[in-house]
Amino acid sequence: MQYPEPIAKLIDSYLKLPGIGEKTATRLAFFTIDMEESDVVTFSKALVAAKKDLSYCSICGNITENDPCVICADKTRDQSQVIVVEQVKDVMALEKMQEYRGLYHVLHGVLSPIEGKGPEDINITSLLRRLQQNSQIKEVILATNATPEGEATAMYISKLIKPANIMTTRLAHGLAVGSDIEYADEMTLYNAVKNRQEI
Amino acid sequence: MQYPEPIAKLIDSYLKLPGIGEKTATRLAFFTIDMEESDVVTFSKALVAAKKDLSYCSICGNITENDPCVICADKTRDQSQVIVVEQVKDVMALEKMQEYRGLYHVLHGVLSPIEGKGPEDINITSLLRRLQQNSQIKEVILATNATPEGEATAMYISKLIKPANIMTTRLAHGLAVGSDIEYADEMTLYNAVKNRQEI
Repeated sequence: MQYPEPIAKLIDSYLKLPGIGEKTATRLAFFTIDMEESDVVTFSKALVAAKKDLSYCSICGNITENDPCVICADKTRDQSQVIVVEQVKDVMALEKMQEYRGLYHVLHGVLSPIEGKGPEDINITSLLRRLQQNSQIKEVILATNATPEGEATAMYISKLIKPANIMTTRLAHGLAVGSDIEYADEMTLYNAVKNRQEI
Repeated sequence: MQYPEPIAKLIDSYLKLPGIGEKTATRLAFFTIDMEESDVVTFSKALVAAKKDLSYCSICGNITENDPCVICADKTRDQSQVIVVEQVKDVMALEKMQEYRGLYHVLHGVLSPIEGKGPEDINITSLLRRLQQNSQIKEVILATNATPEGEATAMYISKLIKPANIMTTRLAHGLAVGSDIEYADEMTLYNAVKNRQEI
């Protein structure tokens, strides 16, 4: 005996999600059956809405309901700075800080020879075009992650931008707030010592 | 800046699933946006279908599209045996064996004083009623899990059934196929020695 068709189909759908295997998919499917019907309907509608109503901003690559996105459309923001990040989630993280009032550019990935990701696979061309077309941009802040791929991507982009005479900066590296020196890795400590500041 | 509403709603829906926290829900929501539209629509429909088209069999408690379920409706099956299991998934596991041709009864849980689950919270009343109304049933095979709660539930049910003069049996306990004696726990070894069989 197989599972009844409706549940088998639902298991198949859950299986398509990342990090969800056969057992978890089955558990989630059975859980769905015991959920409130209104919650299931909301979930069902949210799936289609997220797919249909959202797209990527044609200027910065951020996720948005309207093109251009609210950040690009907001003319009160500082048009001279652009922070380059790997993912949409990074935009949200930086916005939570409530200190930065400039613009963003989302790469949707990093250069990664291991995964076969080259410059044409991430949003670099659109960044360069944006810098060419928009003379207001004076500084590009490279905020890719502090990983080997993130560093390499930042270096690559900074070399491409240099001829255009736009300032490129990189986020500071050092100890995270609340972290223990005892447990910090060597590269973090090296950066923290190298970039020490007078108090 | 918050996430656009469609994605925030989808994150909320994913958060309602068991074992999925804020980070995973966000990852799944972003993954959904990058999925093929047809897959998202299929997923969305499967959710509602699983909720609307499935119910529990009024006889055995198994999950089904039609009531009674295919197993209860199949008169070629052995009507004299009923295997009592904790969950629907256990029915599927036993059916995969392709050896058993009797009926089932799904408890939908076990007695668990810690979780406040008493006899009225699981399908015991319907089992007793079924045994009273159906004189064809000669044997009840208690196939609750080999956990303290499963054992207690089996003991509890066997005591309730005893007066009705129906044979109650319990699945054999011993070494699992492919398992190492070295790594077997003491209770498993104790059961394996106690229930040893002549060859």
